[in-house]
Amino acid sequence: MQADFEGLFGAALPFWDALETREKKQMTGSAQMKQFEPGEVMHNGSGDCQGLFVIETGRIRIFLISETGREITLYRLFDGDVCIFTASCILKNITFELFVAAEAPTRAAVIPPKVFERLSATSLPVSDFAGKLMASRFSDVMWIVEQVLFMSFDKRLAIFLLDQAGIEGSDTLRITHEEIANHLGSAREVVGRMLKYFAAEGIVKPFRGGIKIIDRKKLAALA
Amino acid sequence: MQADFEGLFGAALPFWDALETREKKQMTGSAQMKQFEPGEVMHNGSGDCQGLFVIETGRIRIFLISETGREITLYRLFDGDVCIFTASCILKNITFELFVAAEAPTRAAVIPPKVFERLSATSLPVSDFAGKLMASRFSDVMWIVEQVLFMSFDKRLAIFLLDQAGIEGSDTLRITHEEIANHLGSAREVVGRMLKYFAAEGIVKPFRGGIKIIDRKKLAALA
Repeated sequence: MQADFEGLFGAALPFWDALETREKKQMTGSAQMKQFEPGEVMHNGSGDCQGLFVIETGRIRIFLISETGREITLYRLFDGDVCIFTASCILKNITFELFVAAEAPTRAAVIPPKVFERLSATSLPVSDFAGKLMASRFSDVMWIVEQVLFMSFDKRLAIFLLDQAGIEGSDTLRITHEEIANHLGSAREVVGRMLKYFAAEGIVKPFRGGIKIIDRKKLAALA
Repeated sequence: MQADFEGLFGAALPFWDALETREKKQMTGSAQMKQFEPGEVMHNGSGDCQGLFVIETGRIRIFLISETGREITLYRLFDGDVCIFTASCILKNITFELFVAAEAPTRAAVIPPKVFERLSATSLPVSDFAGKLMASRFSDVMWIVEQVLFMSFDKRLAIFLLDQAGIEGSDTLRITHEEIANHLGSAREVVGRMLKYFAAEGIVKPFRGGIKIIDRKKLAALA
């Protein structure tokens, strides 16, 4: 089991080689491998603090939920990515609530918050990594902010459908209007209306439980 | 002049006492005091990289601009605050463009990017400070994201007017509809319409060049 962590951490954590053997052992010795099913909640707001998630395989979604239950996807993480917001209790100055759920079967190594906190308080490469990771997620979120503020909804939906096709590796997307609305911070009705317009233009074709992209060129022109 | 910087940095930079004398001298010796008039642009997107701004006195506004020229205020900084986005060239993994302008007469010490970069690459307290500062600004931006996504416009406008009265220390706000729209990422017409409604409800009273809050209680109930 320990050998697994070594390989994963060595590939996913840029500070790994800068650690001393003792520090590496602290990490591999305290980490736990966890499995999540699609749809399973992995992190439930700031009261939840399991630690740093290092994704071996899978896909996870980081999102906001409003008081009335509306959702918006901020970004997604994939194989080899690291989720720092699941270690919320050690993140100073972070005052917002994030939620994390698996979108595909996901295997992730969980590094306890205390272990990572101690490392980043004593190792400059670890502290630097945490800062850069934060900057990276900040940039992901700003991309969404600019979309929401400055882009029309047809453009956002077109970008989402193309991204989704890229992630799924298929132009046949098994996703409901409700799910799309939750990604885009919109309402089901708004998504339904725009998809109807896309369908009338011959860009997509709805089917039971999903949408098929039939004119990529036209969709890309909108995005 | 050097004594000024010592006092300002000692008060504004939590890592100051952890620096060696040599490092402190690098900072005070390379810093420059700059003055800005209200409305003056202090940072013009990622091509501009003057360094870290440590605000001695004043008020600055950090905002986004869309391709079509629409603006939204992300946060404001005041006496003793530090602006890290003006050192954009040393910020790894930040991919978005921010703009900074003075809102009041502002005096700020500018620490050259190279000096801060060298310090944060060798000093753990400085690296830690940069990470926490980033987390803090990330939280400010997330507050705006949640407002834009999940709050009605009347609520956002009410919050803005109350904040603005707090900042100005007066219920008589000298601000145009256009300026409010640029803070909230909205259009002048939308602001005008909502203020007209607030006025009809007896909450505010418009005057030439500004707005007076006349019923704080009702405004606070909206916010």
